Amino acid sequence: MNQPFKQEKEITYFMCDRTNRLTLSMLVNILMDISEKHSAYLGTGEEVVKGMGYNWIILHYEFQIEKIPKVNERVEIETIATEYNKLFTYRDFIVRDKDNNDIIKVKTTFALMDLEKRKMARLPEEIIAPYQATFSKRIRRNTKPQPVDNERASQKVYSVRYFDIDSNNHVNNSQYINWLLDSMDGTFLATHTVKHGIITFDKEVNEEDTVTSSSSRRVANNSITDHQITVDGTIHATASFHWYTA
Amino acid sequence: MNQPFKQEKEITYFMCDRTNRLTLSMLVNILMDISEKHSAYLGTGEEVVKGMGYNWIILHYEFQIEKIPKVNERVEIETIATEYNKLFTYRDFIVRDKDNNDIIKVKTTFALMDLEKRKMARLPEEIIAPYQATFSKRIRRNTKPQPVDNERASQKVYSVRYFDIDSNNHVNNSQYINWLLDSMDGTFLATHTVKHGIITFDKEVNEEDTVTSSSSRRVANNSITDHQITVDGTIHATASFHWYTA
Repeated sequence: MNQPFKQEKEITYFMCDRTNRLTLSMLVNILMDISEKHSAYLGTGEEVVKGMGYNWIILHYEFQIEKIPKVNERVEIETIATEYNKLFTYRDFIVRDKDNNDIIKVKTTFALMDLEKRKMARLPEEIIAPYQATFSKRIRRNTKPQPVDNERASQKVYSVRYFDIDSNNHVNNSQYINWLLDSMDGTFLATHTVKHGIITFDKEVNEEDTVTSSSSRRVANNSITDHQITVDGTIHATASFHWYTA
Repeated sequence: MNQPFKQEKEITYFMCDRTNRLTLSMLVNILMDISEKHSAYLGTGEEVVKGMGYNWIILHYEFQIEKIPKVNERVEIETIATEYNKLFTYRDFIVRDKDNNDIIKVKTTFALMDLEKRKMARLPEEIIAPYQATFSKRIRRNTKPQPVDNERASQKVYSVRYFDIDSNNHVNNSQYINWLLDSMDGTFLATHTVKHGIITFDKEVNEEDTVTSSSSRRVANNSITDHQITVDGTIHATASFHWYTA
């Protein structure tokens, strides 16, 4: 039986922004932490996967946020590997507040990177079997972010920093989120919260890269913003966020 | 009786660098977290202090690091408010590994900022009494970092980012540490660990500031590096670190 895996987590001040709300990049860090703990519990942790010549990469996030936790809140995080096909595996997360309300739901798509070939690998049975997820031939069509409106976009340029690189030797996912959001106006960020978000990761960012982050608000609905990360004009990540005033 | 305050902490992957060792900036985040919990336990947490028109600022850190924790380690952190005078209070931290060895010792100097006047305040009895620290007229002479050797320095420039600012509306301490270290050569950072470090905070960095971080290795002893953060030529923070190969 495909069992969910749970852990409690305390939201500390260093996970929060100036408004004392959990940041999206720290939310992702916490989710990846529990995902790795789930794998380790099943005997297929990072060391095992690396030993076989692979590491997991994330291709897609979809966030549905009813309420973002604040500093000092304790939350419960549940994760379940729901389904897989020959190339992708799908993992869901639910964050619950202390009254057991589901406050955040996140859907993710993972793939396996062959460390030597630097490209995606077919999922080997030994790695995927322990999750007891459902096999389905069907490859999901994840919702894609809309393109940035370059005419109206605000833009910032970033050099990759030493501490942006994680033990997989590329820029940590959560850092992309900081870049994606930081290109926006600070007053907007301080007065709005993400209600729904989609992020796709198309290419890795390397240590020597200079990254351009662009974002624009939609004309038709200015509570939605579209985002992209480019390196030398090539898109490495895209996102769309739906915001509410808070 | 002046009681120490303790908490266990798990070192998660997002607190670590590419070598899976706890970063200095995350160490500081963890220490500040337990310091705030200690204050909250005594009834003088951030909300109370802010309600009186103040917030705590850090002026000085001194780190003595025997062994830096690695990912998935559980550590115990103990803190004690040791001594105070009319302007400063001194707080020590000890980090212990699972075998109860002291692996990190940190000495810190705190002062109270008057939020309206934006300058240091005399420590009011209501705020300082609950810690039951020893009053001593003597103001400590903290060891100062040596100046950067500008002839040999490497330098990087940073814009303050939205998420660098914390709920006190200035750049979080831990972000200074990222800037201080990121100006160094990546190969050096990946192969060395801090054994001893001193950091002084002289001025706040504000949201619109552009920061220059410079660092140099000493001629007489190239396992020691000196660092500074400047804004428009004015020093805002300095540091000296003693490294070992690891």
